Amino acid sequence: MSDRLNQTLPATMRALELHSYDSEADSLKLVEKALPRVGHGEVLVRIAAAPVNPSDLMFLRGLYVKKKLPVVAGFEGSGEVVASGGGLLANYLKGKRVACAAPVDGDGTWAEYMLAQANFCVPLLKQTDTEQAASLIVNPFTAWALLEKAGSARAAGVVQTAAASSLGRMIVRLAARRGVPLVNVVRRREQVELLQKEGAHHVLDSSEEDFDERLRELCTQLRVTVGFDAVAGELTGRLLGSMQAGGRVIVYGALSLEGCLIEPRAFIFEKKSVEGFWLSDWLRSQSLFGKITTSRKVQKLLGGELKTEIRERLPLERAREGLQHYLQQMTGGKIIFVPNLPNASSDSIRDTMEKMRNDER
Amino acid sequence: MSDRLNQTLPATMRALELHSYDSEADSLKLVEKALPRVGHGEVLVRIAAAPVNPSDLMFLRGLYVKKKLPVVAGFEGSGEVVASGGGLLANYLKGKRVACAAPVDGDGTWAEYMLAQANFCVPLLKQTDTEQAASLIVNPFTAWALLEKAGSARAAGVVQTAAASSLGRMIVRLAARRGVPLVNVVRRREQVELLQKEGAHHVLDSSEEDFDERLRELCTQLRVTVGFDAVAGELTGRLLGSMQAGGRVIVYGALSLEGCLIEPRAFIFEKKSVEGFWLSDWLRSQSLFGKITTSRKVQKLLGGELKTEIRERLPLERAREGLQHYLQQMTGGKIIFVPNLPNASSDSIRDTMEKMRNDER
Repeated sequence: MSDRLNQTLPATMRALELHSYDSEADSLKLVEKALPRVGHGEVLVRIAAAPVNPSDLMFLRGLYVKKKLPVVAGFEGSGEVVASGGGLLANYLKGKRVACAAPVDGDGTWAEYMLAQANFCVPLLKQTDTEQAASLIVNPFTAWALLEKAGSARAAGVVQTAAASSLGRMIVRLAARRGVPLVNVVRRREQVELLQKEGAHHVLDSSEEDFDERLRELCTQLRVTVGFDAVAGELTGRLLGSMQAGGRVIVYGALSLEGCLIEPRAFIFEKKSVEGFWLSDWLRSQSLFGKITTSRKVQKLLGGELKTEIRERLPLERAREGLQHYLQQMTGGKIIFVPNLPNASSDSIRDTMEKMRNDER
Repeated sequence: MSDRLNQTLPATMRALELHSYDSEADSLKLVEKALPRVGHGEVLVRIAAAPVNPSDLMFLRGLYVKKKLPVVAGFEGSGEVVASGGGLLANYLKGKRVACAAPVDGDGTWAEYMLAQANFCVPLLKQTDTEQAASLIVNPFTAWALLEKAGSARAAGVVQTAAASSLGRMIVRLAARRGVPLVNVVRRREQVELLQKEGAHHVLDSSEEDFDERLRELCTQLRVTVGFDAVAGELTGRLLGSMQAGGRVIVYGALSLEGCLIEPRAFIFEKKSVEGFWLSDWLRSQSLFGKITTSRKVQKLLGGELKTEIRERLPLERAREGLQHYLQQMTGGKIIFVPNLPNASSDSIRDTMEKMRNDER
């Protein structure tokens, strides 16, 4: 355990607070606010790194979950537990490095500190990189949980949309590791090549004319009965329509910002169905033991199948810049905020974080 | 058993055959065709009565299941089993009055005779009226099966669309009998009054401005978690959006002729789902014992909760007229075809059918 725990905690912290769902970066303000009080079953995490995910962009525009405003943004991050409010799990976590998810209706990770429910924290293995761990929960856990769901549904083959996203590519690699045949749907030509270079066998561009026909062929050939959909809109219905009888689409995102449009005959005559997936629900539904087991398995793949590419490391002061970069190019690596090293360059942040990790070993 | 069984069967029969999905009545032709050969597990039913249902209208327009053309229309009917192709059940049914459903991809009930799979036939109880039995399967079985599904899903309350249809009103009465709180959604003002006169407590008109707000209030108050939807289009999504978390819509029709439009947030954040119901699937999924038990329970309610109102009885020759009448006014009683008494007036048909029933007692 490091000696930083013995340092007195500051009275205030810097945080990126959202004040309105109306616009994007303008309503996100860097504020100085009081450090939260830690209650029973809660811990205070000193945030080392917190990524920008597609769900954050949706959240800032009021298109994802709605929290009471003002609220600190950011759904996940990693850091060190510097205080416990009591309770078995919270006390166990004290002093440990963790990955953490923001509370369902409370301040998030884009801050120097975050108040986390102990059961929304995952203790890190010694070999786990703190920066990789910042993206441990949202993408790797979702990839893992979705493929577990497909397994429970005894799907022979699986289809996914938004396959070129960070999460989509994790699903590509994890499905390959598990030997699950996977059809990948992307919305632009260049993404087809990107995925093929990563070793994806079946990649379809939904903007092509023969998309539905080819999708139906592949779904038949690979006996696809489960779909993961992060796009929504009419793509949900095209997916469901092409799948084998009894097919099920699991919607976990809505990048198209449109309602799901589905032919009723798929429901009535083809025994098909649509349901959803939200990581927060999944985390709450898991036992502590199940969560720890999963988290160990997932962490062991963080250097490989579930590795997150990181493009840029920025202090909270440069949030607007980071969001703009991410909006311009959502594939090709994550932008991460590093709240506790505001004025350092990317390289020195990286060095310091490496050092933190080595200290702890 | 009547002595009609000993009569020699004719070589041909008159039937209403559909030749194209392009238009409506014009592609439906009265033809003389060979009596089908009866195979193992099949029976030949001399049709006494066969109704026009909303699904028939959809079928004629190519908007329901698609069968290979030309094909005799009509999804259900009643009559007498005049020949068996062998097999335990088929032989058991010989000489009995039955309600029957058309095969999934074969000739239907709008004919003098229909070839039925024995397990798509329901033997009638002595007290069951042959004419009521013509509508035994599609509506009463669907009403029964949907409420069974709501029961299995442990729904406290239920919501249904197209509540003023024959089936909708059966659900109103059956839910009242079972003490299941029911919210009824109709699409026109006059249907609200019609349903209230029948004793429905909660009736909402989806064309009213405050519909969504009132639906949400009722769904909360009655803890509605299951919906039966025969309309599809945006109504599916409005239903799902108003229901309690974990809500499930079961689509069994598509009267709007539109795709289901559903906000992805209902799937992602509210644990809601959409699935379908098709009676043919349900019939196939039931054991013989289960089907017989259900059919006895349902038949006992045919004089009450599951009674079908009949508006007009017509011979096959007057099919076009019957379809036009039904299209003009789909609520207010069924049109039924009586294929074996082509030139009789409604009253004399009725009398003859009464006599047939009394003969058998």
